[in-house]
Amino acid sequence: MATTGAEQIFKEFREHSAAEFFKKNRQMLGYSGQGRSLVTIVHEFVTNSLDACEEAGILPEIDVAIKKIENGNGVNRYSIKVSDNGPGIPKNFIGKALATIFAGTKFHRYMQQRGQQGIGAAGCVLFAQITTGKPIFVKSSTGKGKGYSCRLGLQTATNKAVITEMTDMAEDFAGLVVEGEYADIRYEAGEHGVYEYVRRTALSNPHLQIKLTDPNGQESLFPRSVKELPQRPAVAQPHPAGLSTNDLLEFAHTSESRKISSFLVDTFARTTQNKIGELKEMDKTIDFDKNPKQMNWEEAERLVNAIKKVKWVAPDASSVVPIGEKQIRIALKNILNPEHMSVTERKPRIFRGGIPFVVEAAVAYGGNSGKKEEEGFSGNVLRFANRVPLLFDSGSCAISKAANEIEWKRYNIDMETQPISVFVNISSVYVPYSGVGKEAVAQEDEIIDEIKLAVMEAARGVQHYVRGKEKVAFDAGRYRAVSRYVKQLSGDVSDLTKADRQKVEKKLESIVSKHFPKMKEDSEGKQVESANEEGPEE
Amino acid sequence: MATTGAEQIFKEFREHSAAEFFKKNRQMLGYSGQGRSLVTIVHEFVTNSLDACEEAGILPEIDVAIKKIENGNGVNRYSIKVSDNGPGIPKNFIGKALATIFAGTKFHRYMQQRGQQGIGAAGCVLFAQITTGKPIFVKSSTGKGKGYSCRLGLQTATNKAVITEMTDMAEDFAGLVVEGEYADIRYEAGEHGVYEYVRRTALSNPHLQIKLTDPNGQESLFPRSVKELPQRPAVAQPHPAGLSTNDLLEFAHTSESRKISSFLVDTFARTTQNKIGELKEMDKTIDFDKNPKQMNWEEAERLVNAIKKVKWVAPDASSVVPIGEKQIRIALKNILNPEHMSVTERKPRIFRGGIPFVVEAAVAYGGNSGKKEEEGFSGNVLRFANRVPLLFDSGSCAISKAANEIEWKRYNIDMETQPISVFVNISSVYVPYSGVGKEAVAQEDEIIDEIKLAVMEAARGVQHYVRGKEKVAFDAGRYRAVSRYVKQLSGDVSDLTKADRQKVEKKLESIVSKHFPKMKEDSEGKQVESANEEGPEE
Repeated sequence: MATTGAEQIFKEFREHSAAEFFKKNRQMLGYSGQGRSLVTIVHEFVTNSLDACEEAGILPEIDVAIKKIENGNGVNRYSIKVSDNGPGIPKNFIGKALATIFAGTKFHRYMQQRGQQGIGAAGCVLFAQITTGKPIFVKSSTGKGKGYSCRLGLQTATNKAVITEMTDMAEDFAGLVVEGEYADIRYEAGEHGVYEYVRRTALSNPHLQIKLTDPNGQESLFPRSVKELPQRPAVAQPHPAGLSTNDLLEFAHTSESRKISSFLVDTFARTTQNKIGELKEMDKTIDFDKNPKQMNWEEAERLVNAIKKVKWVAPDASSVVPIGEKQIRIALKNILNPEHMSVTERKPRIFRGGIPFVVEAAVAYGGNSGKKEEEGFSGNVLRFANRVPLLFDSGSCAISKAANEIEWKRYNIDMETQPISVFVNISSVYVPYSGVGKEAVAQEDEIIDEIKLAVMEAARGVQHYVRGKEKVAFDAGRYRAVSRYVKQLSGDVSDLTKADRQKVEKKLESIVSKHFPKMKEDSEGKQVESANEEGPEE
Repeated sequence: MATTGAEQIFKEFREHSAAEFFKKNRQMLGYSGQGRSLVTIVHEFVTNSLDACEEAGILPEIDVAIKKIENGNGVNRYSIKVSDNGPGIPKNFIGKALATIFAGTKFHRYMQQRGQQGIGAAGCVLFAQITTGKPIFVKSSTGKGKGYSCRLGLQTATNKAVITEMTDMAEDFAGLVVEGEYADIRYEAGEHGVYEYVRRTALSNPHLQIKLTDPNGQESLFPRSVKELPQRPAVAQPHPAGLSTNDLLEFAHTSESRKISSFLVDTFARTTQNKIGELKEMDKTIDFDKNPKQMNWEEAERLVNAIKKVKWVAPDASSVVPIGEKQIRIALKNILNPEHMSVTERKPRIFRGGIPFVVEAAVAYGGNSGKKEEEGFSGNVLRFANRVPLLFDSGSCAISKAANEIEWKRYNIDMETQPISVFVNISSVYVPYSGVGKEAVAQEDEIIDEIKLAVMEAARGVQHYVRGKEKVAFDAGRYRAVSRYVKQLSGDVSDLTKADRQKVEKKLESIVSKHFPKMKEDSEGKQVESANEEGPEE
């Protein structure tokens, strides 16, 4: 047997950069399929703009403009321009902020934000580059006299930004404009298109004003429905209950505290001197006066073990800011205009032992809820994480899984035939996405269970209304069936009894309408049942 | 409104390493859930061993041993040891090969292998480190006098290996042994457990001998069923039909050729001087005598355009090596021992315009096919990519999607109630996985369509047999029902007619068995229908 030695095989050994990796595996960033790729680009820049505006305390105003460019070589290109009124990016950071993978202001902070990876914008720059060879155009200012514009590329071998045409601008301008030219993408309508992405972003961000200009020049404006910014999420301290040994050691080794006891109190949430006392009781072998920098794995493991045995107050909810019941109600009314809806906001929970999260859910019936089918309607699930709509990869998402596991019949709901929209938003300092493209929430049991509880609670709130609608529909069918025979029957009866036909018909009609009073009104043009958008669900 | 300036926000700016990214997002590498995490570790080392053995031309023999370790701190740990008889790893490469993310011999090569990223093993080292604080133990040799052992850790901030306790070994030893201690994992039985992973690996690698020792000390040996190594896949030249402008430019700029014409012939598959002539005809503005290093985006785009208009011979199949119909048949017989099966190997196809791939499918009925349910059976889908079993993330996998879209009824198959296993293996130089954890094939249309065709072809091969089984089952039911009444009926008849009861019973029985001759035989202990494992399907 011809064998090849290890030395020979390892002649092929190479290291590659994160940029090279994602260039080869672009589907992992969401660049698979032309329609999805276009949405990915819009999604990355819009979420960045929203995070920046909110952090700076500015009510966000975002413009998305998509144009088709025909060039002589038969390749269709699009220009995508996203402009915001945010704080801008300082000139000296622009390359790293937008064109370096794994760099940013968000990855290491224990704070609820849409972005959390430092990949998105650099992925767009990379995608523009590999499909059109063109660097993206950026214009920004962080204040008077600080405006500039430039072009940004990404050297994949080194994962470093390539900045060209840097020009200072006198122009009085605030915010960030990013404009790129991309190929291998396509503007599509429908459930997985940009319009739907923008519509859902407006739905989950009622404080946002966003405008989309599509390749046909058609403008869609989604004005803000509330004028206050969402409450700023606090920078959280990690909760001790969720600590792994490794986490604890890493915190300890970078701590400035002199003793393990003060290190614990200073670093972690809900950790008081009283708790230190309890921990001391729990494991007397731990030396709480030791310098945390000296802590070893064994000690950390014992400490984590003691932490697990002590009762802790749940994490402070201030680090997690959900959309809020009232805001969801306003947004749903604005965008779906349902006949009836029910909204639930659950209390904060924790997963992986210590990461707080909040689930909000709503079930809306009628209006623009659900999905229009060739005949009638079907239900749909609108998934959000930290207010960002998730349009793809529903097959691996905790939200879809939770929705699928609900016995909808118990709530008189039929997702196959009714105009129902199920809205779910999960808010957390750290959302465990299943992939780098962040289109699905990982199917962690604690998260799935909590989503189910939230959705079932919301479903109970529409249950009576949906049952009423069903009964009305059922009665209407019977009323129509019976009415159809009134004429025929009155003819037959008058033939048999020689009674006046018209009198018989009137008599029969009045009997029928006594049985179906609502239907009678309805057929006379009145409304079947008054829509109750704002009423209480209980 | 209190606003925070950009300068202040960007004080928080940081870069992080790939290791830090995957430490935080370990679920993206397959470390989500304790059961899955354990399988991920075994999977990474087993696939590395298989690739190494095959590249070196060695018939692989792999031992997987899993032990539970109880330590005083109440945390359950497991030791996982994977040993192979492969070529080993040269001492000077060990740190980068196993403990550096984005490094390896596979990423840049245009060659069909199981690994393609340079992430897997480093992910395991990282996971050991964050769950137990312990570096992994490695023992290897690439030949006589070259043996060594050491411990490997990974410094996350820099993504660099930390090598300790490096010791040369006199011992005569060949291969690689990797042993690590991990927590936050759990040995589980069932469909998503290690035993199933190993069983399926044996199924798709009939040339492999693999032994699993589970935490109870139970050994399961899967001996090889064929004694030849699979054909080595050729290092492929990229096919011109799949080139993007960017690809073409990158090849051109690193080319040693003096002219674009010779660069094209030397670099790409199926590119002859004749083809260059055709390309010249197609676009007369391209200067084929120019130095490829000077090619610019515009020219590359025009060239790609011309390439798209010329007819190309399909990619050479030698770069893609499927398992092969005969081998699949042997392996399925060994492992599922079905009553009947049908195997399809399709011709090579291309996706994304130029990447060749081959789909193989089999449908097996009976024996250990399908999944045992509380009552009866259900069907299951065994997914493989480059012979690696995919146990997780079926919701986002092209194979599952294809299987779901098939109208099984047309083939008399009911996946809900029948003991059916559908086997699919996709082989390619580049499998587009949907995530870094490589547990699902991205849902690219060309791939889904091809899988459907392969599975439907295989389904046709079992269709008659399944229909036969169904008829037999149906007849057996009727036979039992009728037989039950023979005794009762003969009593009644003899009462009425005074005829001899036993005679009547015999008469009735003979009438019944004339109607159901097969059932009669069956009830006498003969086989219903001879199982045909090897016979032709046509």
